[in-house]
Amino acid sequence: MKPPVVALLTDFGHKDHYVGVMKGVLLSVCPDARIVDLCHEVAPQDVEGASFLLKGAWPWFPEGTVFVSVVDPGVGSGRAVVAMEAERRIFLAPDNGLLGFLRDRARRIVRVENEALFLKPLSRTFHGRDLFAPVAGRLARGLDLAKLGPRAASIRGRDLPRPRAVGDGLEGRIMAVDTFGNLITNVPGAGLREPLAIRVGRSRIGRMRKAYAEAKVGELFGIVGSTGRLEISVNRGSAARKTGARVGDPVRVKKA
Amino acid sequence: MKPPVVALLTDFGHKDHYVGVMKGVLLSVCPDARIVDLCHEVAPQDVEGASFLLKGAWPWFPEGTVFVSVVDPGVGSGRAVVAMEAERRIFLAPDNGLLGFLRDRARRIVRVENEALFLKPLSRTFHGRDLFAPVAGRLARGLDLAKLGPRAASIRGRDLPRPRAVGDGLEGRIMAVDTFGNLITNVPGAGLREPLAIRVGRSRIGRMRKAYAEAKVGELFGIVGSTGRLEISVNRGSAARKTGARVGDPVRVKKA
Amino acid sequence: MKPPVVALLTDFGHKDHYVGVMKGVLLSVCPDARIVDLCHEVAPQDVEGASFLLKGAWPWFPEGTVFVSVVDPGVGSGRAVVAMEAERRIFLAPDNGLLGFLRDRARRIVRVENEALFLKPLSRTFHGRDLFAPVAGRLARGLDLAKLGPRAASIRGRDLPRPRAVGDGLEGRIMAVDTFGNLITNVPGAGLREPLAIRVGRSRIGRMRKAYAEAKVGELFGIVGSTGRLEISVNRGSAARKTGARVGDPVRVKKA
Repeated sequence: MKPPVVALLTDFGHKDHYVGVMKGVLLSVCPDARIVDLCHEVAPQDVEGASFLLKGAWPWFPEGTVFVSVVDPGVGSGRAVVAMEAERRIFLAPDNGLLGFLRDRARRIVRVENEALFLKPLSRTFHGRDLFAPVAGRLARGLDLAKLGPRAASIRGRDLPRPRAVGDGLEGRIMAVDTFGNLITNVPGAGLREPLAIRVGRSRIGRMRKAYAEAKVGELFGIVGSTGRLEISVNRGSAARKTGARVGDPVRVKKA
Repeated sequence: MKPPVVALLTDFGHKDHYVGVMKGVLLSVCPDARIVDLCHEVAPQDVEGASFLLKGAWPWFPEGTVFVSVVDPGVGSGRAVVAMEAERRIFLAPDNGLLGFLRDRARRIVRVENEALFLKPLSRTFHGRDLFAPVAGRLARGLDLAKLGPRAASIRGRDLPRPRAVGDGLEGRIMAVDTFGNLITNVPGAGLREPLAIRVGRSRIGRMRKAYAEAKVGELFGIVGSTGRLEISVNRGSAARKTGARVGDPVRVKKA
Repeated sequence: MKPPVVALLTDFGHKDHYVGVMKGVLLSVCPDARIVDLCHEVAPQDVEGASFLLKGAWPWFPEGTVFVSVVDPGVGSGRAVVAMEAERRIFLAPDNGLLGFLRDRARRIVRVENEALFLKPLSRTFHGRDLFAPVAGRLARGLDLAKLGPRAASIRGRDLPRPRAVGDGLEGRIMAVDTFGNLITNVPGAGLREPLAIRVGRSRIGRMRKAYAEAKVGELFGIVGSTGRLEISVNRGSAARKTGARVGDPVRVKKA
């Protein structure tokens, strides 16, 4: 039998014991779980950033994977926790919009309210340890969603923002800046055809490339990245540094 | 049978191959070990910081877990390495005070001296690879502590510092600053009752909250954190930045 | 049966989903792979740095380990990907010199060209996901190298640079600076005998130590490190900070 995969996505960082403790609890409940760190360096409380990252990552995990996303500014308040079955995978997260991008694909959504599954006493500051980890462990062991709590009609949040038409072009947004300084936008790569004018802050980009190494070293260019969206890159350099652009900044694309 | 869990705690960081190499050795000795990264970003040589972190983390791991803690400024000198059985788990560390917080719960302590278990030649700079990893692998496979070396009566170090009575209040310390900028103190949360005056540097805090989201955005407040101690936090912000406080700084708490 | 070990070495960092996605693909192909993070904080596109790190790490992993190294500035261009069998382990990497240090020990080298093993469509920016991960998963499951593509006579790159004789001494290089600020050189430790004069930038070092704790706190000294080469260290401090030296800087060693 395949060992169950549990993928963790948090804003807990790597300097504390928070992620390790979640794994300890998970392995206590489900000793053969295969735990994968999806990412723990989401910016603190950045629900949209986590959502963007999960959207780009989930299709590459095996069916049956349990995704546990704990970016949870409302922890300990009345916010709900939801578990969703979608695309033959299970998604567990606070109901704060993080899973909104999947709402139209949900086969089943439940509110996680069965306290018998939580650690006791349930803290009001670390549900990663006391709620998400033990529930994920039970899901990994095959517990049916119906045992977690009542069915929910829907969840909070919607899909991530799409670019809007502006004049004769599109205005999108920088959704993420990766380790290499690539600016990852929400502009679909499918329709982009040269000649093209891209603007990010004061930088103007006229060239699309198909591979980083096609560009001269230091050249700023557009490229359709690995999730199918427009990215702005520099060969052997950082587009973030070169343009000064940041997450949330607008990106304008029009025919040149 | 449950795969054995080995939890690693070091100050090795993530930019080198040190942690990876330890895992390579571990898996060479115990191929089915389930290795968990507890934390690798302890500040270099910060034995007390490692101790604090381990103290908050160990109870959440399954019984039988082997905890390997390598924060080891005395590596290659005459310092001893000890293995301790306590609370149905095994703790392996240099005898430098790191395990002091557990001394009163130890069921058995041995000095790790059986060179037949070490890699050869034993380096004098990287016992994580040459001593801790192979010994941990053997422990994970079930080797009895008695095979590691002679019994030891005790170990170095004591429990972590407690707050002391000062005037009509308590003076504690900031033991850690986490990724979110929460200031984690050594003041037990159990006895704290409002009205209360907390002082950290020049900041005065009058409110306790039960959850982050109860506070206004930007508000500085006290909260009983996930390990049962007083923490100073800011909702959606960093208490470390807001107060300028650091690890080791005093925290004063008294009735208001 | 021992679960297959797959060790990952990349410059992907920890803030994105790239490493997590590679693991998702790997586990989709080989559910019982034991995945180890060798390092993901190689400087962007630093092929030599990755090579140095892999050279110091591979011997400590079990026989049969599949090493996947993705530091790949040429991704999407015509650069080849190679798989090499050497020392009873398998090494998968772009043919950009990263594996050059092993060329003389290769038992078999193939070019990875069998597109049936890749994800489709094959992106031109993320071969870690689309090519390296699925191929590594197949190798971990025991696929013979011959199925990957045609045999190659050799690979690009050579062993890492060696020190050269200069006057009555040696001139080596700083190959890496680790988390602790140790300066790791390419000067073999074997022949070093005091009295000795070591120069790094403006710093002169006259003492060799056998263990960090032998030196006074703050003292700059030479030591034969865990990979058998000269390192420059400070007890409880950072030699990088103390000397201002960086990767690539020369180190001169001569008899005093």
